[in-house]
Amino acid sequence: MKKPLILVVNDDGITSLGIRRLIAIMNDFGEVVVVAPDQPRSGMSHAITLNSSLSCESVIIDAGPQIEYSCSGTPVDCVKLAINQILDRKPDIVVSGINHGSNSSINVIYSGTMSAAVEGALEGIPSIGFSLLDYSPNANFDESEKFIREIIVFTLKNSLPKGVCLNVNIPKSKDGEIIKGIRVCRQADGNWIEDFQENIDEKGELSYLMAGKFINYDEGKDTDEWALSNHFISIVPVKFDVTSYESIIELQKMQS
Amino acid sequence: MKKPLILVVNDDGITSLGIRRLIAIMNDFGEVVVVAPDQPRSGMSHAITLNSSLSCESVIIDAGPQIEYSCSGTPVDCVKLAINQILDRKPDIVVSGINHGSNSSINVIYSGTMSAAVEGALEGIPSIGFSLLDYSPNANFDESEKFIREIIVFTLKNSLPKGVCLNVNIPKSKDGEIIKGIRVCRQADGNWIEDFQENIDEKGELSYLMAGKFINYDEGKDTDEWALSNHFISIVPVKFDVTSYESIIELQKMQS
Repeated sequence: MKKPLILVVNDDGITSLGIRRLIAIMNDFGEVVVVAPDQPRSGMSHAITLNSSLSCESVIIDAGPQIEYSCSGTPVDCVKLAINQILDRKPDIVVSGINHGSNSSINVIYSGTMSAAVEGALEGIPSIGFSLLDYSPNANFDESEKFIREIIVFTLKNSLPKGVCLNVNIPKSKDGEIIKGIRVCRQADGNWIEDFQENIDEKGELSYLMAGKFINYDEGKDTDEWALSNHFISIVPVKFDVTSYESIIELQKMQS
Repeated sequence: MKKPLILVVNDDGITSLGIRRLIAIMNDFGEVVVVAPDQPRSGMSHAITLNSSLSCESVIIDAGPQIEYSCSGTPVDCVKLAINQILDRKPDIVVSGINHGSNSSINVIYSGTMSAAVEGALEGIPSIGFSLLDYSPNANFDESEKFIREIIVFTLKNSLPKGVCLNVNIPKSKDGEIIKGIRVCRQADGNWIEDFQENIDEKGELSYLMAGKFINYDEGKDTDEWALSNHFISIVPVKFDVTSYESIIELQKMQS
């Protein structure tokens, strides 16, 4: 049987620890091709580069059987380039991450990591975004590895529902507490409250730097936020059909 | 009664014809504040600017009662800045567009126009993205105006369902055919097939420019693509909870 072809992508950039660990894990499951941004691209969501050219260079970052390309574009650009330009066949799985920081709740819509996974799902490929709740560049992925392997084994064996990718968030290690297991959840109803920092430069010009605080408004025990705060891994199945089906009949009053 | 406070945003940039027409329309409905990108920002999706400062300057583009700010950020940055920094109260409605070009079907997830509307909905504000199926910078918005006014009147009177914004697409005028009316639809199952153009510069370096073709795989008469190709305006209610609820039970086999 042919080995699975695995596309690895992320949004923190090709040299970040999270993707290096994910590559090392995926090398055990098949033939790995990495196409990842040449610099950090967090918060890029589903952005694509429409009016300028992208570079995409073959690189060697560390030892291993993987083939790697460093790309000047966004995470979604990387997936589109990989599938349409670089790979000679459709990958069997797309894995994105491991992100340094949470993509739970509403973060899913801002996340480049998750948009890369959504783009894989759009192409009909089983796709998973992995994130660890630790923003540190030196985050420790040791405890994550066993669970990532479990999720990959399941997905390669069973595939995923059509039109759906997985948003996997992994709690940060706490002293003496081990991860309790995996919960399949819905996206919690949470949001950011921004608090822009005002700066005035030497010329007297005002600018704003985005900062803020995430607030979870949702106490549901079926949510990703509940799972994570109770030291479970959360898996939210994410779809790219964003129609609010439940509103269609009510809104048909607008029809003319 | 206090006049509604209206936030106008777009992704084609503050000087584009589409936003100028939308501002002119909205001036009839309330107090208009424009916070829009200082340059074209198409395809930016829900991208946010995390690690660099944003400028946001008061500008006068053309005559009218509106107050305007030109911002260096993405469409979603504009909405966040407006709500958290510029406006002294929460807007009563957010309108985005009028986009030069379609945001139907899967385009909704790449669109800066629609992400600005989604960001408004996230803040609990009735929000609408308008797009005309004409990419030309000189597109003619005359036929759109009457329908946009109808949709605004409905929304100011009835509000919108919680957690939902509207993706309104308007067919391009065709000789002798008038718009037949409005249809509330689901997002059609369509996708882009990319065809990157390879370029080699003087130094021999290869780069790629994204191009492609949209394919609609969905023949449903309840879709936006059907409505538009039959010369109706399509309205898709869009939500930011991207959980695939229908997959949760099946995927609970992954729980450990």
